[in-house]
Amino acid sequence: MSDFSEWFHNILDEAKIVDTRYPIKGMHVWLPQGFKIRKYTLKILKEILDEDHEEVLFPMLIPEDELEKEAIHVKGFENEVYWVTHGGLTELNEKLALRPTSETAMYPMFSLWVRSHTDLPMKFYQVVNTFRYETKHTRPLIRVREITTFEEAHTVHESREDAAKQVEKAVEIYRRFLDMLGIPYLITQRPEWDKFPGAEYTVAFDTLLPDGKTLQIATVHNLGQTFAKTFEITYETAEGDHKYVYQTCYGLSDRVIASIIGIHGDESGLCLPTDVAPYQIVIVPIIFKKGKEEVLEFCRNVQDSLKNKGNLRVHLDDRDIRAGKKYYEWEMKGIPLRIEIGPRDIANKKVVIVRRDKHEKKILDFNPESFVEDIEAVMQDINENMRSKAWETFNSKVRTVENVEEASKEISENKGIVSFGWCGEESCGKELEEKVNMDILGIRGDVEDDKKCINCGKPAKHVAFMAKTY
Amino acid sequence: MSDFSEWFHNILDEAKIVDTRYPIKGMHVWLPQGFKIRKYTLKILKEILDEDHEEVLFPMLIPEDELEKEAIHVKGFENEVYWVTHGGLTELNEKLALRPTSETAMYPMFSLWVRSHTDLPMKFYQVVNTFRYETKHTRPLIRVREITTFEEAHTVHESREDAAKQVEKAVEIYRRFLDMLGIPYLITQRPEWDKFPGAEYTVAFDTLLPDGKTLQIATVHNLGQTFAKTFEITYETAEGDHKYVYQTCYGLSDRVIASIIGIHGDESGLCLPTDVAPYQIVIVPIIFKKGKEEVLEFCRNVQDSLKNKGNLRVHLDDRDIRAGKKYYEWEMKGIPLRIEIGPRDIANKKVVIVRRDKHEKKILDFNPESFVEDIEAVMQDINENMRSKAWETFNSKVRTVENVEEASKEISENKGIVSFGWCGEESCGKELEEKVNMDILGIRGDVEDDKKCINCGKPAKHVAFMAKTY
Repeated sequence: MSDFSEWFHNILDEAKIVDTRYPIKGMHVWLPQGFKIRKYTLKILKEILDEDHEEVLFPMLIPEDELEKEAIHVKGFENEVYWVTHGGLTELNEKLALRPTSETAMYPMFSLWVRSHTDLPMKFYQVVNTFRYETKHTRPLIRVREITTFEEAHTVHESREDAAKQVEKAVEIYRRFLDMLGIPYLITQRPEWDKFPGAEYTVAFDTLLPDGKTLQIATVHNLGQTFAKTFEITYETAEGDHKYVYQTCYGLSDRVIASIIGIHGDESGLCLPTDVAPYQIVIVPIIFKKGKEEVLEFCRNVQDSLKNKGNLRVHLDDRDIRAGKKYYEWEMKGIPLRIEIGPRDIANKKVVIVRRDKHEKKILDFNPESFVEDIEAVMQDINENMRSKAWETFNSKVRTVENVEEASKEISENKGIVSFGWCGEESCGKELEEKVNMDILGIRGDVEDDKKCINCGKPAKHVAFMAKTY
Repeated sequence: MSDFSEWFHNILDEAKIVDTRYPIKGMHVWLPQGFKIRKYTLKILKEILDEDHEEVLFPMLIPEDELEKEAIHVKGFENEVYWVTHGGLTELNEKLALRPTSETAMYPMFSLWVRSHTDLPMKFYQVVNTFRYETKHTRPLIRVREITTFEEAHTVHESREDAAKQVEKAVEIYRRFLDMLGIPYLITQRPEWDKFPGAEYTVAFDTLLPDGKTLQIATVHNLGQTFAKTFEITYETAEGDHKYVYQTCYGLSDRVIASIIGIHGDESGLCLPTDVAPYQIVIVPIIFKKGKEEVLEFCRNVQDSLKNKGNLRVHLDDRDIRAGKKYYEWEMKGIPLRIEIGPRDIANKKVVIVRRDKHEKKILDFNPESFVEDIEAVMQDINENMRSKAWETFNSKVRTVENVEEASKEISENKGIVSFGWCGEESCGKELEEKVNMDILGIRGDVEDDKKCINCGKPAKHVAFMAKTY
């Protein structure tokens, strides 16, 4: 993958994920194959969120005066909000914003919903399209003007501690989700100048694409009482006092799908985790003139048992084209497992299985009793292997550096994330970013006592991370 | 239900379906309970469509020049399109429309996708939010400015016959779907002046709400080659010629959910078909001081077996409040079946079941072997009863009339749909609509030879239907 950007665009096209020819810059069409990957990805996420969140759906338009109520927040978005000014041929009395995110749509309603401490906590989420008038170079699934898949959760709590705990829970939610997809990540607390507009602090997940640039794939924000005060969200305590609530919100987007594609893919094309693959298994019959019907019937039986007993998405590719062409196509589309069955295999009670993740061919005894379980075990091993391979690559790209020169060298040679000691001062951080032409992702954990800031030499307060970013 | 409109608004509020207090007229918030009904309704619809359509997702914004390419089409929408004119603080070079429907978003892409006769037919659908700047009085789920649940299918065919056949298939799809929800309907071909802008003809499903007004709940359009010619959608035939395709599109919206609520509901509140109920069954333990733990354990076992063996959504309501309060609440929320279990029932190996549809209490033998099946049989009977009851009411409201006076009388006394002979002339039809203050829904089937038009007295060409409409 010498040119990731080119590879990425080609695979989106060849595997029919999205069509980028829609006549508005930064807005794309989800094609059937891509839509299915998106659907199964969302299914995993929703199953996790549904455990203790309620799904809701808020309007897409936000009145100007609501959007602009929270000054810090609007400052962060004012350059990228799309505005509706006309309905039909009539100019509207008040401009309406296409939601860039839904705090200002939801929180006026929360102020009506929250009454008593017995209502709390409240935890909602929605999956919607949001809009950003991006002025930077757009890139499908990564930097777009319509984010078609924006999952945003919003929670309301009684106390500062409860909100802080929810931030930790949200981190665990996204960790579980990304682990199921085998996507590695670095979790840091964003520097002050890069936190969500209106938040007290932001915890972010960054992953690393093959070109060495990090991609922010999920964020969790502790909103404190900022919005509660702006939107007058209060509750009555057990003692009858009225207090402002504490809030959190957390979200992720299409970028998760970009990561699945970019991180697991290789020169042969997509390589999909089994849970999100449109087909999880494809069966290719090896047909000769003799015994064709027998082979096909055997294949159909295998398909039925995998579908019915295993609840797997299995496709039997009985097209009348060369087997090699089928192999090429299904590998390119990233289908995790291929099963090849020919007359000799049936006679020998064996099938050939080919794993997409390892490009590995194996002969499997066909035992009707245990076959579905045998295949399920292979599927699980595929996911585990994909995950560990991805983490291995990721970890090999995170290096600790002791000074600015090393950081520069490391980034140009190893192309990844550098870890370093930092004093925590904004001016020093910005200076450092300038020097090495990278962005500080954030800080994590404590630092050893004798560590120094690699830029200013003062005692380091944090272990920090930086990289070239998307 | 003396005042349907008031009842409808109250139940949306009390059963927490949508919150209508969002600060933009005609745009509402789906609350968790409503969202679940919406989710399960869409699940049924998608399962049917997935049989031979591919799900896709197109951008929400449409460039002005695409929207305005098809003159007849844009004429039908120009008064109700919302326009985005600014991105951030910048005025856009070209205005962008919030999709009122997606023909003009999709068909420029179809012209890139369709190449050969071997590509056809193509059948796609998407479920999205669409927007109409309604100037009429808005009403939640019925007449809104953001249609949050707009299912639209778009198909492409080689020939006029194939498109006509697809119209029939689409009618069957919606028939199956509405039958599963027990919603009765009248299927007619809309009069010329009321067809979809750009269509050759429109087939529509109308249902009847308790106030005697019909509600259009699904439409199927044969688009002929109108859009194919505008958007240059051509295919190469087997002989190597290039021809324009034929197209259809069909859709439905939130109004289906309004119909579920309005048609099955009664003075006690919602009454939900089992497939769309957030909980399908609620178990209420009847607890006395003695034997409380035993009853609860029994209830939990019943819940587990219904969940695991029956794959049913079952809630055990073990709150420490009066049973009567629970009954009231779950009836209001429309949960199809309630199971009451007390210590005496356990001793007698019996449970009490209460059906929401009939308000009927029955004692059921508790046979662990067959219990899940017994309950499933009751669930099926609930759906059948709801459907036949709804159709009975509907059919009793469709009456044939022989002249204009009868039509007027019928509509004011019986409040429903009148069927009559019509010459088919637009001027006569519009005159008739004026006279009786109703809308012609459409025409259906053939008319007897000697029938006369009830308005002009000329020979009738069609059996037509009219009603007061939403």
